[in-house]
Amino acid sequence: MNKKLIYMDNAASSRLDERVLEAMKPYYFDTYAVATSEFAYTLGILSREGLDEARKKIALKLGGTEEELIFTSGSTESSNLAIKGVVKAKQKEGNHIIVSKIEDFPVLNSTKALEREGLKVTYLDVDKDGIIDLEQLKESIDKNTILISIQHANQEIGTIQDIKAISEISQDKNILFHTDATHVFTRLPINVRKIPVDLVTISAHTLNGPRGIGALYIKKDTPIKKHMDGGFQENNMRAGVENIPGAVGFAKAVELVVKEETDKIKNIRDNLIDKILKEVPDTDLNGHRIKRIPQNANITFHYVEGESITLHLDMNGIAVSTGSACFSRSLEASHVILGIGGDHEQAHGSVRFTFGRFNDMNEVNTVVKVISDVVKRLREISPLYKKNKE
Amino acid sequence: MNKKLIYMDNAASSRLDERVLEAMKPYYFDTYAVATSEFAYTLGILSREGLDEARKKIALKLGGTEEELIFTSGSTESSNLAIKGVVKAKQKEGNHIIVSKIEDFPVLNSTKALEREGLKVTYLDVDKDGIIDLEQLKESIDKNTILISIQHANQEIGTIQDIKAISEISQDKNILFHTDATHVFTRLPINVRKIPVDLVTISAHTLNGPRGIGALYIKKDTPIKKHMDGGFQENNMRAGVENIPGAVGFAKAVELVVKEETDKIKNIRDNLIDKILKEVPDTDLNGHRIKRIPQNANITFHYVEGESITLHLDMNGIAVSTGSACFSRSLEASHVILGIGGDHEQAHGSVRFTFGRFNDMNEVNTVVKVISDVVKRLREISPLYKKNKE
Repeated sequence: MNKKLIYMDNAASSRLDERVLEAMKPYYFDTYAVATSEFAYTLGILSREGLDEARKKIALKLGGTEEELIFTSGSTESSNLAIKGVVKAKQKEGNHIIVSKIEDFPVLNSTKALEREGLKVTYLDVDKDGIIDLEQLKESIDKNTILISIQHANQEIGTIQDIKAISEISQDKNILFHTDATHVFTRLPINVRKIPVDLVTISAHTLNGPRGIGALYIKKDTPIKKHMDGGFQENNMRAGVENIPGAVGFAKAVELVVKEETDKIKNIRDNLIDKILKEVPDTDLNGHRIKRIPQNANITFHYVEGESITLHLDMNGIAVSTGSACFSRSLEASHVILGIGGDHEQAHGSVRFTFGRFNDMNEVNTVVKVISDVVKRLREISPLYKKNKE
Repeated sequence: MNKKLIYMDNAASSRLDERVLEAMKPYYFDTYAVATSEFAYTLGILSREGLDEARKKIALKLGGTEEELIFTSGSTESSNLAIKGVVKAKQKEGNHIIVSKIEDFPVLNSTKALEREGLKVTYLDVDKDGIIDLEQLKESIDKNTILISIQHANQEIGTIQDIKAISEISQDKNILFHTDATHVFTRLPINVRKIPVDLVTISAHTLNGPRGIGALYIKKDTPIKKHMDGGFQENNMRAGVENIPGAVGFAKAVELVVKEETDKIKNIRDNLIDKILKEVPDTDLNGHRIKRIPQNANITFHYVEGESITLHLDMNGIAVSTGSACFSRSLEASHVILGIGGDHEQAHGSVRFTFGRFNDMNEVNTVVKVISDVVKRLREISPLYKKNKE
């Protein structure tokens, strides 16, 4: 582990930025009281001010107000709260919700859990790029529909949905709209005033911020019930002693993402996609070429296993992912690649690249060269490749 | 804020220990991959090893195995998972659970939420020291009882329950037993092999560990359903990208608590109790004098408001609490003090002291002197005091 490693996987955006830790330290070592001790207690008030300032900064970045932002333990909890909380609050009004087939697991497995309790769920198809059909969305809405939950961008293939159009449909039909913006927040503009969304899931761990802290934007007056019972924290929407250092670190991580950096990341990413598609034969980009978050690339290398590529890149000090970050332990094929019409071969041959603050353009040449060699060697021993090329 | 502050409130145990942060740093800055990327990915494996080592250390301290410990975002989530998860898993077997009246809010408000969905809950009375009646517990059990959830020690008055006796009753009747050990863990021995408990809630934030990380011990084969849906982390019991720095910090915080330190804390606490009861007239200790966690004192100063005492101590650079940490924002009387038979006057006149690693014996004399003066002055202007003393 002496040579410099190249991170082009989730770790590219999950390394903590030193400046984030510096911002957190005062809340670990100086102002470490519990925020809710509000009366007559200077340290508690200072803690609360730190928490509220963090809340305000993050809410502003979304176009919301501090009253509309609830801290959680991460995007998983945020999406659980959004979906289960709305379903519970609106159970007398209807029992149908609409999601896409390629949502991330917090949304998808929350709906599956609720289905076992009687909720009706429509799983919208997506096209070959991963984009939902707005007509199918409209047609799926009935008088029992209480919530639409469509991700802002996909966790594996990076495809961005038309949030504006979905928002208009939901507004028109008076149905609540939740979006999981975990992979979009700060990298692309989101403004809930310009494009109305009722609930937005975000997290710090994809922004070189701390683990274990996320948030849910909840538009004022949205009917929702809490998921975690206990104390009266977070405007009585989420119990538990507040993770103030985490919240302050989250706000700092948000502040540190600037457009110039995102442009740089996008350039690196584009360069990698172009070079691989040009220099490595039998490759395809998964997801939309343009409507795509700047930090993601997902490429299928036909006739080889993504796992084998990952292994060989790892031996060369290069980290990339297969399938979904949460799921790559399992050898099940990605539901996203299957969702965009890929077969199991395509799903197993796909490799996901994630780019972040610490990547640079020089790494691209190294990675393309190594991957080109690795794929060539793997194909030489691939029966599938031989069969197809004979 | 130039003079040294004296923390005798929850902050006494919530300041992060520098050694904990040092233990966390490698997982922020070096080994920061997502743990679940298990195949073919060195950094993911190193992350997982760090996580599992932390899990093992904490499980061992409880007398359990690493397969039996699930990381959560804190004790609130742990208790929510324990109660809601068991109720869901055993809903076909029964719909009755038993808790004490003086449980902490995560337990109490979880049961209240479930009552609204049809669960039957028995709230056991406690005696003047806060101890449950074991006969009442036995009598409350019926064929529908699926869970007993009694705290190991109380969050406000520090009283320790007879966990051994409760465990024997639960074993005898074949009913699951959950205990919230947030305020006991590491300060007093707990061993789930010696005293069988099925589920144990613990947290790092009371051990000078990081915020936002806790755990639930779940005895092997305990029927329980997950509360947070999403990825397959934590043995498929708790979804969400793992907070590895938090887990590692939690384990370090556990390691740093040693018996000598706890003895020192107990001495400081005892000294404070004895001096106040002796030097300040019309005072009572709340909770059991002996069966009490080492770090807690809770004293009623009759004829004055706890809030006023807190305010005046704060002006003198001394931090103490009133009521419960989660609740002191509200002016509602503590359900714990009311539970032990106190009236509203007693509840409002109670002050809670929490002691930790950074307290020393010299602070006791300062605090007793200040508090003695403050209470004297407050009584001089208290109509209630005059009325009672006339």
